[in-house]
Amino acid sequence: MNPRPHTAVIGLGAMGLPMATRLAAHLPVTAYDISEPRLAQLAAAGGTPAATPAEAAREADVVLLAVRDQAQVDAALFGENGAALTLRPGTTVILTSTVGPDAARATAARLAERGALTVDAPVSGGPVRAGNGDLLIVVGAEDKALDLSRPVLDLLASTLTVVGPRPGDGQALKAINQLLAGVHIAAAAEAIALARGLGLDPATVVESLRHGAAGSFMFADRGPRMVEAYASDQDPEVKSRLDIFVKDMGIVTGIAKSAHVPVPLAAAAEQLYLLGERSGLAAHDDSSIVTVLSPKEADR
Amino acid sequence: MNPRPHTAVIGLGAMGLPMATRLAAHLPVTAYDISEPRLAQLAAAGGTPAATPAEAAREADVVLLAVRDQAQVDAALFGENGAALTLRPGTTVILTSTVGPDAARATAARLAERGALTVDAPVSGGPVRAGNGDLLIVVGAEDKALDLSRPVLDLLASTLTVVGPRPGDGQALKAINQLLAGVHIAAAAEAIALARGLGLDPATVVESLRHGAAGSFMFADRGPRMVEAYASDQDPEVKSRLDIFVKDMGIVTGIAKSAHVPVPLAAAAEQLYLLGERSGLAAHDDSSIVTVLSPKEADR
Repeated sequence: MNPRPHTAVIGLGAMGLPMATRLAAHLPVTAYDISEPRLAQLAAAGGTPAATPAEAAREADVVLLAVRDQAQVDAALFGENGAALTLRPGTTVILTSTVGPDAARATAARLAERGALTVDAPVSGGPVRAGNGDLLIVVGAEDKALDLSRPVLDLLASTLTVVGPRPGDGQALKAINQLLAGVHIAAAAEAIALARGLGLDPATVVESLRHGAAGSFMFADRGPRMVEAYASDQDPEVKSRLDIFVKDMGIVTGIAKSAHVPVPLAAAAEQLYLLGERSGLAAHDDSSIVTVLSPKEADR
Repeated sequence: MNPRPHTAVIGLGAMGLPMATRLAAHLPVTAYDISEPRLAQLAAAGGTPAATPAEAAREADVVLLAVRDQAQVDAALFGENGAALTLRPGTTVILTSTVGPDAARATAARLAERGALTVDAPVSGGPVRAGNGDLLIVVGAEDKALDLSRPVLDLLASTLTVVGPRPGDGQALKAINQLLAGVHIAAAAEAIALARGLGLDPATVVESLRHGAAGSFMFADRGPRMVEAYASDQDPEVKSRLDIFVKDMGIVTGIAKSAHVPVPLAAAAEQLYLLGERSGLAAHDDSSIVTVLSPKEADR
């Protein structure tokens, strides 16, 4: 195993840029993004900009994909000037996006035709933790691929859970994580909207219930942000975009349907996030979903 | 305030018997239940059995109602031989059942016509904590009623939250507690059913996700019981009956509708608990709801 693999990062968005920046402090990093300013930020952090995914991947031992969804994964790898054009046999591709098990398996199969290895490694934790190497990463990969990508994963993760040997295994666990997280945020929104409807003080409700049998990580984390949404005229800071849950609850209900498992709450949550997106909240913080159930200007 | 009020307990079920037993160790307690064996258990603990609610309430300074639902509250107070026949002006009635804000307010109004005071005090925590004086109680009551009932409430509660001065205020917060708890149990069931459907080990999924952003009290508490449901041929011990959530999610969706607040996840959860009840699980532990989504004998 090469302890300092040359790493290509494709996608310098909310998660990709802090990951690439952290990696560039320890490893040779080449990166591609559609945005010139993003590439310049990476260059300032010591990375090398590339003009295309293919160019970024040319010298790489490891290619890390940090893009939004499977369409972008396909474009970055197999599109015009995609990284697959320059991948060498034995190069390891780390998929950090949440795309679902089937998409990860299909991608791994196409990469295997070119002799490349795949590490299915969807990440959780947000941009700040990405920059601090404090992500939670759930992995599906065979041992050889995992070994080759370890120096990169270890720089990014504070908790790395190997779910199984197949690409897709990490996606499966991440989907279940997102089912719970997305339903819990929606439940918090219903609780706070109902508290308002009943004339209770939402802040008191959050404080009274967060430590008991009604508690969840999301109720304690998003609850106060939802309360804030009513206290201020300004939109709250975007820590996690609402449309991430449109995508991820779509993955959840899709794989549940394929597995013939009913998930009525996840399906209701998916519809709620779609309603939020339709209401113009796609790029807002996901806690803003509460305003769909209980509008700010509403009579109480 | 009388520090040792004579207390009548009406209803010696899963919650009523341990509460009455604990009270009888410290206060004069008279009790009524339809079940002779239950009355005998209370007598063995030092309480005095009564033949009717009216007889139980005759000498009482405080009447504590520990019955299942509003129909039983009405029968115990205002039915044939109901406690209202013997209540004296100034007697305080503690409603520990979860019945919803409107029902609690209506009961308080009828009691006020007879000069009795009402403490709306729905309890949480289960039978074991009831016997240890370790309940969580959320209260709606004016100061005078609260003062008169304090010696009883303090023997039962480790956490007492006074939500507001009106009967119904405690019920409102309890309903929000049940919304979150009921949705979180259903979400845990969907997560574990989906894990099985995807071929993941459910025990590993619970362990991997319970401490992170997907975590909830209910996922950590009911999750392992759901995993157990598949590991054993025996039904798990009943710690909390499934049909409690049929009743309580019904209260949640009812008051939300009255307040014109959409609660799509709570509504989906209500339907899921109704399905569980229809599947013969009413008296089973609520964690058994997972077997509705992923039957024990199913192909995986």
